[in-house]
Amino acid sequence: MTITLADVERARRMLAGVALRTPMLAAPKLSGLTGAEVFVKYENLQVTNSFKDRGAFVKLSALSEEERRRGVIAMSAGNHAQAVAYHARRLGIPATIVMPITTPFVKIKATEAFGAEIVLEGETLAECQNRVDAIIAERQCVLVHPYDDPAIIAGQGTIALEMLDEIGDLDVLVIPIGGGGLIAGNAIAARGVRPIIEIVGVEAKFYPCMRNVLTGANDPVGGSTLAEGIAVKNVGVLTVPVVRELVKNIVLVDEAHLERAVNAYLTLQKTMAEGAGAAGLAAMLAAPELFRGRKVGLILCGGNIDPRILASIMVRELERDDRIVSFRLTIMDRPGELGAIASLLGELGANILEVDHRRLFLDVPAKGASLDVTVETRDHAHAEAIMRALARGGYRPARLAARASN
Amino acid sequence: MTITLADVERARRMLAGVALRTPMLAAPKLSGLTGAEVFVKYENLQVTNSFKDRGAFVKLSALSEEERRRGVIAMSAGNHAQAVAYHARRLGIPATIVMPITTPFVKIKATEAFGAEIVLEGETLAECQNRVDAIIAERQCVLVHPYDDPAIIAGQGTIALEMLDEIGDLDVLVIPIGGGGLIAGNAIAARGVRPIIEIVGVEAKFYPCMRNVLTGANDPVGGSTLAEGIAVKNVGVLTVPVVRELVKNIVLVDEAHLERAVNAYLTLQKTMAEGAGAAGLAAMLAAPELFRGRKVGLILCGGNIDPRILASIMVRELERDDRIVSFRLTIMDRPGELGAIASLLGELGANILEVDHRRLFLDVPAKGASLDVTVETRDHAHAEAIMRALARGGYRPARLAARASN
Repeated sequence: MTITLADVERARRMLAGVALRTPMLAAPKLSGLTGAEVFVKYENLQVTNSFKDRGAFVKLSALSEEERRRGVIAMSAGNHAQAVAYHARRLGIPATIVMPITTPFVKIKATEAFGAEIVLEGETLAECQNRVDAIIAERQCVLVHPYDDPAIIAGQGTIALEMLDEIGDLDVLVIPIGGGGLIAGNAIAARGVRPIIEIVGVEAKFYPCMRNVLTGANDPVGGSTLAEGIAVKNVGVLTVPVVRELVKNIVLVDEAHLERAVNAYLTLQKTMAEGAGAAGLAAMLAAPELFRGRKVGLILCGGNIDPRILASIMVRELERDDRIVSFRLTIMDRPGELGAIASLLGELGANILEVDHRRLFLDVPAKGASLDVTVETRDHAHAEAIMRALARGGYRPARLAARASN
Repeated sequence: MTITLADVERARRMLAGVALRTPMLAAPKLSGLTGAEVFVKYENLQVTNSFKDRGAFVKLSALSEEERRRGVIAMSAGNHAQAVAYHARRLGIPATIVMPITTPFVKIKATEAFGAEIVLEGETLAECQNRVDAIIAERQCVLVHPYDDPAIIAGQGTIALEMLDEIGDLDVLVIPIGGGGLIAGNAIAARGVRPIIEIVGVEAKFYPCMRNVLTGANDPVGGSTLAEGIAVKNVGVLTVPVVRELVKNIVLVDEAHLERAVNAYLTLQKTMAEGAGAAGLAAMLAAPELFRGRKVGLILCGGNIDPRILASIMVRELERDDRIVSFRLTIMDRPGELGAIASLLGELGANILEVDHRRLFLDVPAKGASLDVTVETRDHAHAEAIMRALARGGYRPARLAARASN
């Protein structure tokens, strides 16, 4: 069962006017960050905020009348669920979505809002499988697999056609790998229209499944990752041979790279990427030598990140940049002491965010106290200047580790 | 000095290939939120992340060789500064930017990064003026006014031409007003190509300057607003007559509307808007009856918001939605009590974010203690269920006001 450029082109004709032709824009600030010439395809602007719209619509449109009547079922904690629910409703097809009970609230609600029946089952996708099988046996509904399906793969591949339409001379595409549907479709399409283009895959370090399969390695798979959209334990049967043939190499990215990439999209490109959506940029940060000086196309493949996690990443990045700094001071426990310190910090241009005053620690003198202060600073040099001024004031400042909440 | 559609069309030809033709996309989730059919023009994706790129380039390109040699000066705390600095460097023109010393660090750094000379002076823009005059007298450089200049106004107006190119039958454009350059240019352009289109202006409630001028009112002007990009105390001489003639009405938006709009852009559209950039959407939230059922074009005119402020808005919105809830419990001060409560919260599906245990309050029994807990919940109903369960457990829960930091 070979998928070809012609299949992707057919999918593109089906999608015309249905899925958004998302923007493909030069990203000069990301170019500055990475030393490459970066272009971003904003798949996070699709209606369900991920590329999954494409494959889901192509698959659902290809169903017979009889199949549509029986309805569809999908097993997904995230973007595939929303895409299937959305397009099923548009096409008048009943949809059931089975999700692990651990699915973030925001994703359950978004899927429900598109009119699908939600079934919560099991701790992981693997544990949902039995329930899915039971529902299929009962209702004879059609399974919409998130990646191991020729229609899905062809649908996702339409992204690369649009990218190369606009920037025909890209040197390399960097594409996240979960089950492999996104990279397989886009590798077929991109290499079809531009045979010399290089395809680089990205997996989360905790989920190197495709790499294990390709290299015969048996590296451990599992753990909590920001890139839950590509945290997949089983790659596709259809996708592996495509990746083996067309993908040059696979970069593994760790959590710090993913966080930095999410933050860079937000602060430099003013756009919201989920962890998996930022994986391509994370790979550029993790292995810059692969991309330097080249024309790189990134697929920002999804934007569905929990606002609380995003807020936490932003604050952590400010701490990494020394724009939010926490330190402990040793002070005399007497009236006026806090006022003196607060005034000093004010004169230094440090904006106080948090103060925690303690008298019960054993490592301060009996008549002393300890004061934990978190301030906003301009940058690393400013933070250092503040620490020096506090030391000169006799407060024995000690930096505390970042305490970004949650 | 009348600016015409022909001026805007000329500006558009100058900008071709220089400023980005930003995406103009349907925003179905914002349509759902507002009851209108909403389209967004993503000016936050310009290189300096605001529409100011357009006017600045048009103005700088129109300078004579002699003027270019002498250099330019601009007075701005924000987006205008970055746009002038960026295009001046591209055109090889020396640029000096005078900013108030209160300018957020992120904006100073961004402008410096574009190679301009930064002069920090005074608490407000008004206080910068003398310094600007002195520098002009000394260097004979050309002032690039942020709005009261025909070239700037014509440059900004190119946005509406692009919007109507893509969606020709828009009923109304909603456009933020600071000094009035953005709305004047776009009103001229939009009404020029589509005479029946309605133009609605937006001002921050704390800065109703244009409205004061048009209505003869004398409402107070000043205060701290999230929309610092339109917090202007003097509207333009050139802009007022255009607004008087072409703008149907002006909506004032308060801080809560601005925060909700910034959050909606982020969580629903996956894009980052600064306060002024979200003002159009804020106006739709403030006065939905003006827009319901109509085809509305929003100019998301800027995306330069401090990450810390954005993170704080996101958390506050979660609190408003009861997805983060804080309450105080009265408990017996004995071993095991905290464990029992934490276990109960776990069974209820409440994710504990913060715990603060106090024994020193006077309003709890001498042998009692008070426990402040912040949890993440699914939604309002879930929060209520948790409160009821705690009451049944005898913990006398009392909701605490939102405590979003900063």
